[in-house]
Amino acid sequence: MSETPTVEIYTKTDCPYCEKAKDLFDAKGVDYVTYNVTGDDELFAEMKERADGRETAPEVFIDDELIGGWDDTSALDAKGELDEKLGLATDGGDDVEEHRKLIIAGTGISALSAAIYAGRSDNDPLLFEGDEPGGQLTLTTEVENYPGFPEGISGPELINNMKEQAKRFGAEMEHGIIENVDDSQRPFRVELANGDVYTADAVIAASGASARTLGIPGEDDLMGYGVSTCATCDGAFFRGEDMIVVGGGDAAFEEANFLTKFADTVYLVHRREEFRAEDYWQKRLDEKVQAGDIEILTNTELTEVHGTPEDGVSHVDLVRNPDGHPSEKLDDPETESFQMDVGAVFVAIGHTPNTDYLRNTAVETDDDGYLITEGGRGAGQTKTGVPGLFGAGDVVDFHYQQAVTAAGMGSEAALDADDYLEDLPDQPEIEATDAAPADD
Amino acid sequence: MSETPTVEIYTKTDCPYCEKAKDLFDAKGVDYVTYNVTGDDELFAEMKERADGRETAPEVFIDDELIGGWDDTSALDAKGELDEKLGLATDGGDDVEEHRKLIIAGTGISALSAAIYAGRSDNDPLLFEGDEPGGQLTLTTEVENYPGFPEGISGPELINNMKEQAKRFGAEMEHGIIENVDDSQRPFRVELANGDVYTADAVIAASGASARTLGIPGEDDLMGYGVSTCATCDGAFFRGEDMIVVGGGDAAFEEANFLTKFADTVYLVHRREEFRAEDYWQKRLDEKVQAGDIEILTNTELTEVHGTPEDGVSHVDLVRNPDGHPSEKLDDPETESFQMDVGAVFVAIGHTPNTDYLRNTAVETDDDGYLITEGGRGAGQTKTGVPGLFGAGDVVDFHYQQAVTAAGMGSEAALDADDYLEDLPDQPEIEATDAAPADD
Repeated sequence: MSETPTVEIYTKTDCPYCEKAKDLFDAKGVDYVTYNVTGDDELFAEMKERADGRETAPEVFIDDELIGGWDDTSALDAKGELDEKLGLATDGGDDVEEHRKLIIAGTGISALSAAIYAGRSDNDPLLFEGDEPGGQLTLTTEVENYPGFPEGISGPELINNMKEQAKRFGAEMEHGIIENVDDSQRPFRVELANGDVYTADAVIAASGASARTLGIPGEDDLMGYGVSTCATCDGAFFRGEDMIVVGGGDAAFEEANFLTKFADTVYLVHRREEFRAEDYWQKRLDEKVQAGDIEILTNTELTEVHGTPEDGVSHVDLVRNPDGHPSEKLDDPETESFQMDVGAVFVAIGHTPNTDYLRNTAVETDDDGYLITEGGRGAGQTKTGVPGLFGAGDVVDFHYQQAVTAAGMGSEAALDADDYLEDLPDQPEIEATDAAPADD
Repeated sequence: MSETPTVEIYTKTDCPYCEKAKDLFDAKGVDYVTYNVTGDDELFAEMKERADGRETAPEVFIDDELIGGWDDTSALDAKGELDEKLGLATDGGDDVEEHRKLIIAGTGISALSAAIYAGRSDNDPLLFEGDEPGGQLTLTTEVENYPGFPEGISGPELINNMKEQAKRFGAEMEHGIIENVDDSQRPFRVELANGDVYTADAVIAASGASARTLGIPGEDDLMGYGVSTCATCDGAFFRGEDMIVVGGGDAAFEEANFLTKFADTVYLVHRREEFRAEDYWQKRLDEKVQAGDIEILTNTELTEVHGTPEDGVSHVDLVRNPDGHPSEKLDDPETESFQMDVGAVFVAIGHTPNTDYLRNTAVETDDDGYLITEGGRGAGQTKTGVPGLFGAGDVVDFHYQQAVTAAGMGSEAALDADDYLEDLPDQPEIEATDAAPADD
């Protein structure tokens, strides 16, 4: 390994994960070169060859070694191994790096709204970005329903505005993935995946949710080779091909709509008869169906994705049953099986809340992993059962899941945390477990 | 009365209520002339004389008859009498003007956020502005904590942005004050103060809250003559004088801070020892106290305002007790009485929710008049106990009361209303009370 490692990143235009990769190296102060493969067949072929056949951007190389896409790079960073490869590794270890009044998990819309309010309340918040800096909104091309922007605003721009606003009031943001929170002591002990440890008087969990996958054969193997959870990231790679979008909510409809720019035909596959998408999206989709750009397959499920990393997705197996949920009714004579030749599969079937790092705390979650908070009408709506630990945004909200509702809840969490911090003694003492027992 | 009445409005620069008055006549298609008294002593003296000594803008005249300020003009409009004076009176009466899927009470931040979402859901919302078009945010000079605007945005601009956005998705806004909602029938019967009647399948109450007053002698008589609930409206009229701000929350701190631009000294009078204002404001106030621009009087209350409409406020009576709430302890030997010479009194002691028009419905409110909604974690958080009637923003929220929390709740109400409307039969039948009884 050379002393100053050579970092190369293959990118494409309008690729949020490429931006995340560049941001990561920027934050580390590491120089890199980028190659934009958009519209450059030769460069694309070069990337594909160097990346063992993978067709999605970004693809990151350090000293000619393939690191992989954003997920791989981020995972390596989480383990501290990226810093090793870059010659930046610190001693890590178990020493507490720093004590903070307030640590916020996440840098999505809810976390940043919490940071704006917490900054203004002089609670000096520190945010850890997690493995999806900026959260889900960075994957959204256009946000039309966040109140205050009559012409709409792009997701990344809205997030950047909020970052700037939070920094203006003193919030700090760091790359890092919280792996564990220890609530058996105060201050809380917050352990990062790279081994760093912080302490905090209060913690706001605003770590959002991550894309869910189908769990069918072929999906994992071809993820990044034709299977994707991000149409805006990867759609353009499959120009002129038939594509499948799986799902029935707003996200699926938005992705299907977006993909008509590139696809020959987009097939929207949904396991039930009815859709959950809002009327606005259903209407736009109807127009695309009328125009012949989208075909809808209801009561249908994918059962397997076929292909190879080298050549991408070739075809998929599907089942259909007039009563829906066909994969649960494979023996039903009304269930029919069929195949379709497609070039790409986009999975948009919802999200799982990112609450794993709280598994060792006393925080209650529901069956799907969403945090249970106090709710109600007055103060403290974002309180969890653990004093000093608050939840906001998509880690809590399994229903509305809008940018503005996440922002509102983030602000509430910061105000609740401020109430909690105000009531703390100025210098919280950690209870000594080996203190002399009191008389009697 | 001439056939085309002459409408004159005395205004000043940075006067939200002046804008409301102009908007009202604009909406009626009535021409008017404006006289801006800012910096023009002669014009100010003329206004004061024509307005029977009142010193606040706007002052409205129709055919040389004094109508008064915004409150008076708006009240007259609510009774339908303004239209009479303008020769615009319709027959009014009890005929239903129009049926709508969704009527929203209010045009503040919560109502407009609901309108954006309801418009996108094709629920064709109609908003009635009430007597404070644009809501409380129109009285705020600078909103720094609404996430998405790193440099801050003025309250009126944020409201205008949202209006434009709501209109883009098909929302309609009308002047009008809802006086009564009848929930004994479906569709709901929505009666306006001017006698017009609408019906609606669903109603969102997002009518906000209005400034509370002290209820002490002199306050009512001098309201508009030196007593005010809006520093940004009236502060500049009392340039160079000593002023009192009453209150201990964010609004009081913001008003006191703002008034230092005009006042000799601002006295912040609060009946308790502790303040409820956020740290950000406490810090800014501390700086002004250090600079000698603001003096703080804790555990102190006003008991009477002295003065005349001709000469404005001359002085106020106050009481102080080291344990706070002195007006409840007038016999306590530790309670001291004193007087202060001041030129203006700004009352910033909170708000009362505007829920009066729901008094004949089965909707539950708490003791302060706030609507009780379902809350919880999943769908339907903004439901009241009356199916089809939803509540959002400051009519519900007695605690957080932030622009972004109101926006979030407004969006939730629109989504909840959409769920309700989707489940309604396409052509809801009104139950006929005189239907023939079914066979036994």
